[in-house]
Amino acid sequence: MSVTLEQIVSLAKRRGFVFPGSEIYGGLAGTFDYGPHGVALKNNLKALWWKRFVEERDDMYGVDASLIMPARVWEASGHTETFNDPLVSDAKTGERYRLDHVLEGAGIDPAGMSLEEMWSALQEKGLKTLAGNAYEQPTTFNLLFPVTMGASKDSATLAYLRGETAQGMFVNFKNIIDAYHPKLPFGMGQIGKAFRNEIAPREFVFRLRELEQMEVEYFVSPESWKASFEEWLGIMRSYAEEIGIPLEHLHEKEIGDEDRAHYSERTIDFEYDFPTGTKELWGLAYRTDYDLSRHGEYSGTPLVYIDEEKKEKVVPHVIEPSLGIERTMLAVLAAAYDEDELGGETRIVLRLQPKVAPVKAMVSPLLKNKPELVEKAKEVRMLLKKVHPAIAWDDNGNIGKRYRRQDEIGTPFCITIDFDTLGETPDLKDTVTLRHRDTGEQERLSIEDVAEKIRLALA
Amino acid sequence: MSVTLEQIVSLAKRRGFVFPGSEIYGGLAGTFDYGPHGVALKNNLKALWWKRFVEERDDMYGVDASLIMPARVWEASGHTETFNDPLVSDAKTGERYRLDHVLEGAGIDPAGMSLEEMWSALQEKGLKTLAGNAYEQPTTFNLLFPVTMGASKDSATLAYLRGETAQGMFVNFKNIIDAYHPKLPFGMGQIGKAFRNEIAPREFVFRLRELEQMEVEYFVSPESWKASFEEWLGIMRSYAEEIGIPLEHLHEKEIGDEDRAHYSERTIDFEYDFPTGTKELWGLAYRTDYDLSRHGEYSGTPLVYIDEEKKEKVVPHVIEPSLGIERTMLAVLAAAYDEDELGGETRIVLRLQPKVAPVKAMVSPLLKNKPELVEKAKEVRMLLKKVHPAIAWDDNGNIGKRYRRQDEIGTPFCITIDFDTLGETPDLKDTVTLRHRDTGEQERLSIEDVAEKIRLALA
Repeated sequence: MSVTLEQIVSLAKRRGFVFPGSEIYGGLAGTFDYGPHGVALKNNLKALWWKRFVEERDDMYGVDASLIMPARVWEASGHTETFNDPLVSDAKTGERYRLDHVLEGAGIDPAGMSLEEMWSALQEKGLKTLAGNAYEQPTTFNLLFPVTMGASKDSATLAYLRGETAQGMFVNFKNIIDAYHPKLPFGMGQIGKAFRNEIAPREFVFRLRELEQMEVEYFVSPESWKASFEEWLGIMRSYAEEIGIPLEHLHEKEIGDEDRAHYSERTIDFEYDFPTGTKELWGLAYRTDYDLSRHGEYSGTPLVYIDEEKKEKVVPHVIEPSLGIERTMLAVLAAAYDEDELGGETRIVLRLQPKVAPVKAMVSPLLKNKPELVEKAKEVRMLLKKVHPAIAWDDNGNIGKRYRRQDEIGTPFCITIDFDTLGETPDLKDTVTLRHRDTGEQERLSIEDVAEKIRLALA
Repeated sequence: MSVTLEQIVSLAKRRGFVFPGSEIYGGLAGTFDYGPHGVALKNNLKALWWKRFVEERDDMYGVDASLIMPARVWEASGHTETFNDPLVSDAKTGERYRLDHVLEGAGIDPAGMSLEEMWSALQEKGLKTLAGNAYEQPTTFNLLFPVTMGASKDSATLAYLRGETAQGMFVNFKNIIDAYHPKLPFGMGQIGKAFRNEIAPREFVFRLRELEQMEVEYFVSPESWKASFEEWLGIMRSYAEEIGIPLEHLHEKEIGDEDRAHYSERTIDFEYDFPTGTKELWGLAYRTDYDLSRHGEYSGTPLVYIDEEKKEKVVPHVIEPSLGIERTMLAVLAAAYDEDELGGETRIVLRLQPKVAPVKAMVSPLLKNKPELVEKAKEVRMLLKKVHPAIAWDDNGNIGKRYRRQDEIGTPFCITIDFDTLGETPDLKDTVTLRHRDTGEQERLSIEDVAEKIRLALA
């Protein structure tokens, strides 16, 4: 079904996935807090990414760099100069808008336009602000958050919250070379927060001021970048499938010369059909030797690789698969969200892949006031917890209500312990009811067979 | 053995655990970057904490709140007013010092002293700065990092990088109540970054400006706090043992009335015998109803629990076990660091618990230029990777050197594949040499027995 953003936001709050940041204080725009199911979902997405992009590969090195980095890093990366958004204001109210968004809203594609060109396009169309006023002369606004470190104004150091995780890897290139002596091609991988002072954070977790990224910087010799680019393209597609992002809604958009960063020779944006439109989900960029050259130059520490065979120094080129966790989560939720009819009632169900579902199974005694059922159900739960720790307990309300709650958080399996489990019907002793999320179908299975089904679903 | 901080710093850099933050730019005081082995060690410590403090318990709710929170949160928590360090300056050079550290350096215990009392104590002793000059009148310095959000000065919002993870849980108390309807006692757990503008970051990762915490806020009814306090005390002790912090070097210091935060009725500091002295590692505090009352008052949203049986509203009291990841890692490394003699040579060895070791086992072909050995070794490695993904490969240099490298990163097991593995001595076919890190002893075992040994060591 086609889901609206409002439906996702509502479910996310009601079921403890995502809350507005510091909500009791009226929220803080562009920040969100994650509840238990959101933390579990994000952790599952991160763990799978880490496994596929870093852990399983002998050519990948995991790092975790500081979120605050000195100003010089951001000068070298070009962020202090170019990490800007184009801004226009309402001439009367002073309210600020992203100029490119204003143009998009008027059906003009601002891709590749300079600030001046965007401003001309706005004027030609005679566009007015939401309040019906004229727009004022545009400016640019830098997205980095400055942080002043140290105790006094004279000795203080200007630093920035990192605008992307990538730079935390480039500055550690030499450390990895010195400690591990890797051979080209090799890469670094990192999961962590990044910060952008967005003018207009919006669309739930789509455009954030505080976000989290999963990035790889893969270092290659200049002549072999194409093969590595294709390899990572394949890995990104596989990851999408594994976490439940359907490839038919994931579009690989080749970015034209005029829209790529000047140092990039090829970039593919993965766009997803979000509830609010088809928009950027992930990126894959070939960044040439821009990053290592710039940091080598600005830091005074040459960032080079010594090719022992050819006896020469090279500045490796970089392939960068870049994924944002919140957008990934939003795509996964949008793809999984469904409403159907079951037993004559409409239900909401998250058809999450078992691997990413926050809860893998729920165990329930048919009646909560029968100690023998409760005890047996606890025993079954302990047994299933050996397969995976995320096995929930619910003895609240009738069984139908319990199933509905689990449907809404995407739990693939529900297990109910009844009197037959205890042996009331001797043939059924130690069997349970296994209820499947997607169909609502139930089957009678031995406890061991249930454990095996869960194991297989997570393999 | 007693290890020095320098030995740990040197090993940590050489073996890819910890690097100074943005090192090629001269570093950024109080920040560090983690290399592959550091990331793995930290992730293992976090995963075990999460398991013991959150995941295994049905009364615990995991959250992940935003790092940036609005100013009002920090007014409510008391941080804008009291999260200060006492500061004195050199009257001539202007250099700044922590007044309490100056007193400690002179053998005076500043615990419980007001700013004025500390200043009097300094003057009475006639203390001089390192440069031999007089100290100037003391001031206080707030440790929160301000962050201005939004695009313009007039519409900008003042926020702070969080000074502790705790407040991210208190502000979500109502969200958890509404989404999960938990019964008292219950708690929230969180792992995440916190930031403190320390005047003098120092002692490697001991005093940081950017740090990471693992915290629980456990909500209890006022009359039952003592039992919960004891329970968490026990859980903290068990965690210390599990990660390899020896209890004989972990001292539980009961904090006296005059040194506790005014709202706390009992606090225990866990102090560890660090290389630089016996200092605070973790804390356990009974915080009364201070936090929920203050946030209720400041936000206008009552943070209460409704006791369905007694039909009354209560403001729960809070027990807070608080652990810093970097200090935990430092204690684990200090406890594990050892030098001994093996085969007539001195070696450095990290006697890490297998559960926290970054690499669980290393597989090696005896000779790298014998394809049949390499192939068999790869096969063995794939098999062991089913037990745990962190199985390293090393075919570089002689076997002795490979073992020494693994000793330095704390790998508990090394497995060597030789011609007997291939069947040169028929009785020994499919057996390998298993070498134990702590003793250097080697034994001949079947591949299945090796897998089982690793499995048991990680259980």
